[in-house]
Amino acid sequence: MAKKRLNVGMIGYGFMGRTHSNAFLQAGRFFDLAYQPALTAVCARNAARVQAFADNWGYPSVETDWRRLVERKDIDLVDIASPNDTHAEIAIAAAGAGKIVMCEKPLGRNAAESKRMVDAVESANVPNMVWYNYRRVPAIVLLKNLIEEGKLGRIFHYRAKFLQDWTISRELPQGGEGLWRLDSAVAGSGVTGDLLAHNIDTALWLNGPIRELTAMTETFIKERRHTLTGKVEHVGIDDASAFLSRFENGSLAMFEATRYARGHKALYTLEINGEHGSAMWDLHDLHRIQWFDHRDEGRLRGWRSIHITDSDHPYMKRWWVPGLQIGFEHTFIHQVADFLEALAEGRPAAPTFRDAMATEHVTDAVLKSAKSGSWEQVAG
Amino acid sequence: MAKKRLNVGMIGYGFMGRTHSNAFLQAGRFFDLAYQPALTAVCARNAARVQAFADNWGYPSVETDWRRLVERKDIDLVDIASPNDTHAEIAIAAAGAGKIVMCEKPLGRNAAESKRMVDAVESANVPNMVWYNYRRVPAIVLLKNLIEEGKLGRIFHYRAKFLQDWTISRELPQGGEGLWRLDSAVAGSGVTGDLLAHNIDTALWLNGPIRELTAMTETFIKERRHTLTGKVEHVGIDDASAFLSRFENGSLAMFEATRYARGHKALYTLEINGEHGSAMWDLHDLHRIQWFDHRDEGRLRGWRSIHITDSDHPYMKRWWVPGLQIGFEHTFIHQVADFLEALAEGRPAAPTFRDAMATEHVTDAVLKSAKSGSWEQVAG
Amino acid sequence: MAKKRLNVGMIGYGFMGRTHSNAFLQAGRFFDLAYQPALTAVCARNAARVQAFADNWGYPSVETDWRRLVERKDIDLVDIASPNDTHAEIAIAAAGAGKIVMCEKPLGRNAAESKRMVDAVESANVPNMVWYNYRRVPAIVLLKNLIEEGKLGRIFHYRAKFLQDWTISRELPQGGEGLWRLDSAVAGSGVTGDLLAHNIDTALWLNGPIRELTAMTETFIKERRHTLTGKVEHVGIDDASAFLSRFENGSLAMFEATRYARGHKALYTLEINGEHGSAMWDLHDLHRIQWFDHRDEGRLRGWRSIHITDSDHPYMKRWWVPGLQIGFEHTFIHQVADFLEALAEGRPAAPTFRDAMATEHVTDAVLKSAKSGSWEQVAG
Amino acid sequence: MAKKRLNVGMIGYGFMGRTHSNAFLQAGRFFDLAYQPALTAVCARNAARVQAFADNWGYPSVETDWRRLVERKDIDLVDIASPNDTHAEIAIAAAGAGKIVMCEKPLGRNAAESKRMVDAVESANVPNMVWYNYRRVPAIVLLKNLIEEGKLGRIFHYRAKFLQDWTISRELPQGGEGLWRLDSAVAGSGVTGDLLAHNIDTALWLNGPIRELTAMTETFIKERRHTLTGKVEHVGIDDASAFLSRFENGSLAMFEATRYARGHKALYTLEINGEHGSAMWDLHDLHRIQWFDHRDEGRLRGWRSIHITDSDHPYMKRWWVPGLQIGFEHTFIHQVADFLEALAEGRPAAPTFRDAMATEHVTDAVLKSAKSGSWEQVAG
Repeated sequence: MAKKRLNVGMIGYGFMGRTHSNAFLQAGRFFDLAYQPALTAVCARNAARVQAFADNWGYPSVETDWRRLVERKDIDLVDIASPNDTHAEIAIAAAGAGKIVMCEKPLGRNAAESKRMVDAVESANVPNMVWYNYRRVPAIVLLKNLIEEGKLGRIFHYRAKFLQDWTISRELPQGGEGLWRLDSAVAGSGVTGDLLAHNIDTALWLNGPIRELTAMTETFIKERRHTLTGKVEHVGIDDASAFLSRFENGSLAMFEATRYARGHKALYTLEINGEHGSAMWDLHDLHRIQWFDHRDEGRLRGWRSIHITDSDHPYMKRWWVPGLQIGFEHTFIHQVADFLEALAEGRPAAPTFRDAMATEHVTDAVLKSAKSGSWEQVAG
Repeated sequence: MAKKRLNVGMIGYGFMGRTHSNAFLQAGRFFDLAYQPALTAVCARNAARVQAFADNWGYPSVETDWRRLVERKDIDLVDIASPNDTHAEIAIAAAGAGKIVMCEKPLGRNAAESKRMVDAVESANVPNMVWYNYRRVPAIVLLKNLIEEGKLGRIFHYRAKFLQDWTISRELPQGGEGLWRLDSAVAGSGVTGDLLAHNIDTALWLNGPIRELTAMTETFIKERRHTLTGKVEHVGIDDASAFLSRFENGSLAMFEATRYARGHKALYTLEINGEHGSAMWDLHDLHRIQWFDHRDEGRLRGWRSIHITDSDHPYMKRWWVPGLQIGFEHTFIHQVADFLEALAEGRPAAPTFRDAMATEHVTDAVLKSAKSGSWEQVAG
Repeated sequence: MAKKRLNVGMIGYGFMGRTHSNAFLQAGRFFDLAYQPALTAVCARNAARVQAFADNWGYPSVETDWRRLVERKDIDLVDIASPNDTHAEIAIAAAGAGKIVMCEKPLGRNAAESKRMVDAVESANVPNMVWYNYRRVPAIVLLKNLIEEGKLGRIFHYRAKFLQDWTISRELPQGGEGLWRLDSAVAGSGVTGDLLAHNIDTALWLNGPIRELTAMTETFIKERRHTLTGKVEHVGIDDASAFLSRFENGSLAMFEATRYARGHKALYTLEINGEHGSAMWDLHDLHRIQWFDHRDEGRLRGWRSIHITDSDHPYMKRWWVPGLQIGFEHTFIHQVADFLEALAEGRPAAPTFRDAMATEHVTDAVLKSAKSGSWEQVAG
Repeated sequence: MAKKRLNVGMIGYGFMGRTHSNAFLQAGRFFDLAYQPALTAVCARNAARVQAFADNWGYPSVETDWRRLVERKDIDLVDIASPNDTHAEIAIAAAGAGKIVMCEKPLGRNAAESKRMVDAVESANVPNMVWYNYRRVPAIVLLKNLIEEGKLGRIFHYRAKFLQDWTISRELPQGGEGLWRLDSAVAGSGVTGDLLAHNIDTALWLNGPIRELTAMTETFIKERRHTLTGKVEHVGIDDASAFLSRFENGSLAMFEATRYARGHKALYTLEINGEHGSAMWDLHDLHRIQWFDHRDEGRLRGWRSIHITDSDHPYMKRWWVPGLQIGFEHTFIHQVADFLEALAEGRPAAPTFRDAMATEHVTDAVLKSAKSGSWEQVAG
């Protein structure tokens, strides 16, 4: 059966432009999908660089104004992989033009901005999804399944961290290409929106809503040269962010993200402790899960290091043979596959814009609590 | 040179009575000490059981009233290994009788109680120490040395947890022998005083004073049968306790203790992140330290798993040969050795009663903040 | 600059047909190459299945007779990914037709067969390479560099294993699609040619030639139903194979491969011990290397777990950002990239057919020694 | 009930003199035993040093001639912890004097020497045991139990190694105090008798008799200064030793020991692969076992890291509480406890002299095969 062609218009050519482009190209090779994405146009302001990107990835055309891309009749799906401060405007326009809209996380820079985006896609009734790619790690999907089957029983604790160490140097400037994540005007916040948002999205998916929290944030280096102005300027982002919280299911949680933890490059870790068992996962060995089952025979209880490469593990029968690991980029491929499968079946694919907005209700509460010094309820 | 005999009067015969007795017996075999402890008398209310304990460990006499033990002329050192609610009264009497006083942690059930104990030993001018044994783990002493040498540079983050899973069953009663830690009247608090206190003591030693914190606590099982009354009663202790804090050196910290983390028996973990490096340690493999040095050659940077069994590691030249690990009980032996060495040199051995009181200022603030929902300053 | 197109004719559509096809498609996206491979035709006997494969991977044409593929004028490069017993005949014909020839490992079923293949490509003077993909694991390339820089000093020991557990069941048949590796007529040998060959290729590359060895092999299940005949037949392959050996550099080595090691799916491990340091690697966490440097400060010596995802690690600046791991398939992509770079520069890319033949001199000696019970010299 | 006193005469005050003395002192504190060992006399040639040792460990008397110790009426048990070349003569005399005899491993320097020792204790009918202490690691006893219960099913593979790195320097002399293990006249062999012997003893216990083997040995540094003569002399010991073998149960095995493996201090490792599961253990984390059970649910199969500190683990209810690890020295304490329990019940305690002789039949075959280059049958 012939596949239906789905023309993709990509906005942005940075790290995420690459992972998304790769995912659109690869998904159909490994998954049996009704739709075949076609990389149709890519848009960015720098004409020379966007052309080079287009040549590399096989986009037959380029745009330098995202408005033109959004208006093109030959584009079915607009994928937003540009910096955070552009998400809302583009997404709303794309929805208005009736396009399918995919958006890199976080959705907006705060819940209010996200709400406008949610309203836009829901009014236009267009399929939409946010690239919280860690929901597509096979190990995490397995964990989701185990929780839903009740294997952990009542949940007591949830812990998540995202530790990096790339901004410790005082010499690192803020702003500009590759460094917009350090510019609060563009990014919205620092690690709260960049890293904690990942932890929170997964947590909400696995453990349900967060009711309340108390937080602290810190900016260790208070002034940095700004790439765009050339001047030493106040740093507006948070370098580190942590909070204590209570989920609606009664479990307690600790969350933390920082770019000041030496030795950790992108160490997203999570742990969940339930009545009957516990699980741990981390991004540095994303193809493994640590699993403890208290119902094992007493003397043989232990943490199992499960190598998630068997054909009965989520997504893995699509890849190689047992023992052969996949990597980071595959999570995006899985997300495209799931999205296209949902599209073919006419149902939404999580996380939708609405799902993703829930994360921003939490990050908003984190930033608010860090200022107020009080426990804050999570809206939404 | 003949060793000076030091007559030890032990109070309590539980888990800690055993570890302390063993430490007094073993220290002199492995360390070159001017004093030789002699197990002289042990005291507990149950005459038959205390006699059995005395026979096993070689105490030539027993007492069933601690007041008699404290008054005995042949006792030089009173070691308090009985439940928390007895610490203050015994320690104050022992100091009044001019005895050297050692006390199992926590010192008192709160800082006020501890203050009376500190005043007593300081007025009497008697040598004193609290058994925060994890300060004597070779790996942790190595870490202390590395921090003092500046190997980590400016500190950004400190994290510590103490995870257990032994009270998850609803059927477990509270109170009575072996279960007094679940009885708030005896224990003072739950995991805050029992487990977090260990995390805090080490943290204060390694990273300096804590300035302020915000905390949460939880009691998952709200009622349990009380062993002594036979009735189902309200549970007064905290089952889980966590806090965010700021140290005076500007670093951020997260602390957590719980008895509801499946798969973890006694998992005390700590991590410290500095400008130039990071270190991690955990009690389940106490003979290792994880060390990351950012000044290593770039492509060869990694976390080193250091097996702390070489003769240039703290305490280890006293034990076996490289590669052969020691265990939990050795931390108590080291503490006796350090205490006796300090005694011979006429100087205090840390942690003194005063040092230990600092931990209770923190645990008091934790319990206060958990009620107030606000950030609390740490007194002291 | 426009890339030169290189038309690829693939033979075989199994596990290796997939990894090779993916590698040809992906290499140009991530590496800056003068040649762009074009998947032009794929060949296999089953017309329906080869067409499905072609549709999936984008081959515009198919063949069902490899002779036709080899003769096609529009094919520049013949890639052999079919079972071992077909390698020699196809490679010799392809070389005769002046094609570039790439061949899945092992080259032939024994050194004599390989010799004919080497002679063919060398007489025809066509570029050639064998897919010993583990030479392109970033961690192993780093190790190669470290050895060449002398970081390990004199080498004392080399150890390698390849452990699997997928043939333990008596019910598993031999022969036919997906199971030809159990049929000695097709495969040539069992784990010796399938798994040990990988260990040996890497070892020869890292540690130089093997001088002599003594081996043992075993077939645990002696009879299995044959898929093609339907009868229970004698099993001709070796299920397990191990040998002791001496390298020409004076180091001692142990090698082992088996399909009877429960719990290990594809556990290729290697370790090398030198005067100044040691290194370990394994395929289940292929993005890490364990490194021990004896010249580190004594008390801080430890095994470093190096996460091979930084831009100064081999190949990694082509992929994502630090901390984000790649997987198994990337080794094939790297191999294509290296091959095409060498092609552009007019030099051979290792391992050539000649390089790969050296492995078969070793596997021949292994099988010979297993029969003779004696030490055997390695030819070549 | 009063314990029966058992007067111990110790010969040797080195590393093993310390571990044995400690074990005799500690066993009765933690195990409920009918006999109480009393450290009665210690013997060594150097009068000053043996007196210091006696003072430290509480031996009330010393001897400088082992013949006098053996003849003393007040000695019940002679424990031989002196260098290997003294074992036979002392053991035979002690048996002749009707003493209980314990001997550090290896029993003799070869099977012939051991045979004379076996004959002596069996003729005299005296209780006897060899200190192969790793049989008393709780993790290994658990593994023994699991094998006997059939949890692994048919065994396919056994692997063991003992890796050290302390003799790599050319400057290290041979012979004399602390270095007699490098002097072949005293030690009998190098790593074969010192390290492989441990691997073999455990293997015979866990997996039954070894039928045949083929071996290689190497001496990397061929000449070293001899401490006693002051001259540079030929090195007679083996620095590295490895062998392939077949057990009588049909399983294949690889064994290796070396003192030239950088980064490994005393890394005794073992692995056993059976039809239904596998297990691994190593001495650097002796309180853990790695366990894989193929009968676990497919998607949840993984290697369990079992922390052997629970009360249902062998020996562990005698020690502390779950999560608190023991160390190397405890294996000797367990061995004393087991020996005394067997003594009280009038049965032999393994490994007896006869059991230990079986290991030397294997090490003899290793040394023979390393010379002959042939497979050798194991005698006995």
